[in-house]
Amino acid sequence: MKQLKIELLSKEAFADFGDVIEAADWATHYTINGGNTERYHDLMRIEVDEQGHPIVSIFRGQARQFPFEIGMMERHPLGSQCFVPMSGRPYLVAVAKKGENLGVDDLRVFLASGAQGVNYARGVWHHPLLAVDEVSDFLVIDRAGPGNNCQERFFEQGAMIPTASVL
Amino acid sequence: MKQLKIELLSKEAFADFGDVIEAADWATHYTINGGNTERYHDLMRIEVDEQGHPIVSIFRGQARQFPFEIGMMERHPLGSQCFVPMSGRPYLVAVAKKGENLGVDDLRVFLASGAQGVNYARGVWHHPLLAVDEVSDFLVIDRAGPGNNCQERFFEQGAMIPTASVL
Repeated sequence: MKQLKIELLSKEAFADFGDVIEAADWATHYTINGGNTERYHDLMRIEVDEQGHPIVSIFRGQARQFPFEIGMMERHPLGSQCFVPMSGRPYLVAVAKKGENLGVDDLRVFLASGAQGVNYARGVWHHPLLAVDEVSDFLVIDRAGPGNNCQERFFEQGAMIPTASVL
Repeated sequence: MKQLKIELLSKEAFADFGDVIEAADWATHYTINGGNTERYHDLMRIEVDEQGHPIVSIFRGQARQFPFEIGMMERHPLGSQCFVPMSGRPYLVAVAKKGENLGVDDLRVFLASGAQGVNYARGVWHHPLLAVDEVSDFLVIDRAGPGNNCQERFFEQGAMIPTASVL
């Protein structure tokens, strides 16, 4: 079975898949609240179709066990979906570029720090939540409205994440 | 100077001011991702005027020093504003009900746990971010667009939060 290598998450590495949400120097930022607070401004693109609207939820994910097999992927054709950790703990993100042809050779796996959120652009293939070590809560902004906004694709033979570390 | 008493944050206590965002039993929730994840669904109301749109930012707040004087409040007439802690640490929230008459006797102060976000409804008076103990990051969903969306009101004599604890 194909073994997947974990990459460190960065804005550049993730650019084909969506946004990285973090208080980083590359973001537009400025001081507010009389000097108390730094605002890292407008960090992601909320996408919803014309009939949809954005909603805010919390996803509570059980920790995955490793080695972990990526046996399927999903995508949301009608809107973006972001995950921002509320726990401060790292987690994994598995994605593949948009399109109808999806195979395990297209998979990319990233280690996100506990200070990084990810926003999957509309239609980008991704694996469901991959929490690590402990039960973890994530703030999620995605799309509600009419129509089927979740498509799944199962692999005949999956690919393996051997460990939850880049080391 | 008036001394403020801190209350514990709950959905009921905060109902006049907006939403509490938490993975609580009172929220609509259901299991997804093949049993791995519990989705606490659609936890707050995003409000924006017709010319505005919601954006996602991170606010990095310095810890406040206590006793802390509430000397002013602000409100956003064109949209809601939510704060969700990314650090897992508690913080304080100071609010007052909507309306033109605002005095220190209207102030309410809540202690939010690190697993609770708050969403100020459009037009609700609130104090800028009150992080406690350490520099803390919060995910913020608020409104961008034309027009002035921040009004401030300064008190001739403020009110004091003696400590960052309900005890």
